[in-house]
Amino acid sequence: MEEGTKNELLSRLKSIAGHVRGVERMVGEDAYCIDVIKQIIAVQRALDKVNALMLQNHLETCVTTAIRGEEARERERVIGELLEVFETASKL
Amino acid sequence: MEEGTKNELLSRLKSIAGHVRGVERMVGEDAYCIDVIKQIIAVQRALDKVNALMLQNHLETCVTTAIRGEEARERERVIGELLEVFETASKL
Amino acid sequence: MEEGTKNELLSRLKSIAGHVRGVERMVGEDAYCIDVIKQIIAVQRALDKVNALMLQNHLETCVTTAIRGEEARERERVIGELLEVFETASKL
Amino acid sequence: MEEGTKNELLSRLKSIAGHVRGVERMVGEDAYCIDVIKQIIAVQRALDKVNALMLQNHLETCVTTAIRGEEARERERVIGELLEVFETASKL
Repeated sequence: MEEGTKNELLSRLKSIAGHVRGVERMVGEDAYCIDVIKQIIAVQRALDKVNALMLQNHLETCVTTAIRGEEARERERVIGELLEVFETASKL
Repeated sequence: MEEGTKNELLSRLKSIAGHVRGVERMVGEDAYCIDVIKQIIAVQRALDKVNALMLQNHLETCVTTAIRGEEARERERVIGELLEVFETASKL
Repeated sequence: MEEGTKNELLSRLKSIAGHVRGVERMVGEDAYCIDVIKQIIAVQRALDKVNALMLQNHLETCVTTAIRGEEARERERVIGELLEVFETASKL
Repeated sequence: MEEGTKNELLSRLKSIAGHVRGVERMVGEDAYCIDVIKQIIAVQRALDKVNALMLQNHLETCVTTAIRGEEARERERVIGELLEVFETASKL
């Protein structure tokens, strides 16, 4: 993974962990349920963005290498994994 | 697309169209809201399955051809499209 | 359900059934996979809108009646159903 | 909110924050993209569970109070909020 992408991912994940601790504080202080739910949905969206970046990196590196390679089984493995992730993610 | 895959997709879509008409009848006959909602969610899941089949076919044919090809721009285009579909579908 | 809401729902469902038949035609004519997937996602969104309308009607009628009523069990039943639908729908 | 529910929510959120830091470590150590994506999806599911608990509490307390109350505007406000959350969450 390129250094730039990696740093962006790490900084996004650090900020997401902080966001989750913020939600924890809200619950501790009896914030209004709907406000807590909205913050949790915001965290989930931030995680979607991390997933999109991971997937982009994966397609541009591992998937491209596997598909350009000579091993049919490796190509199938990589495509199978993509389908699995796609199906899981669209059923979040 | 292979004939078998195509026939499976057509038969699933025909059945989904029938399912939607069934939901229409339920609404016309004042069925209980929650029952209607559950049927609509079932239709959406059936459409997820069609999407997964389309995507599998796409990865095994167009994407593989593009990535094994010599044109860097075509490879990028195909990867960009996959990311777009992935992001849209996970935000259904 | 009010006549206006019912007519809107019926007209949306009729249009969705037509949309699904359009997707069937696209597959029959070997349209580009990504274009088919985008149309299916559009159908799923249109179904989300129907679900939102059904849910609004349900909250304004059945749920309000049950919660204002005297039967604790009926209140719990209606709340349990809402939670179930919410959990299922957010995992589409 | 009951003390038991609150403690369960706090403990789930604490564990989710730890899970996010684990994902951060995985990225730092160049784990396989697909493994990272699967962990992120697991975090999102854990957040879905927190949302379901928050919503259950909200329905059993605030929504029930508002709907049983005499103020039509407050009833409408609470129902409008529920619809908004439902629509946002199902489009994650």
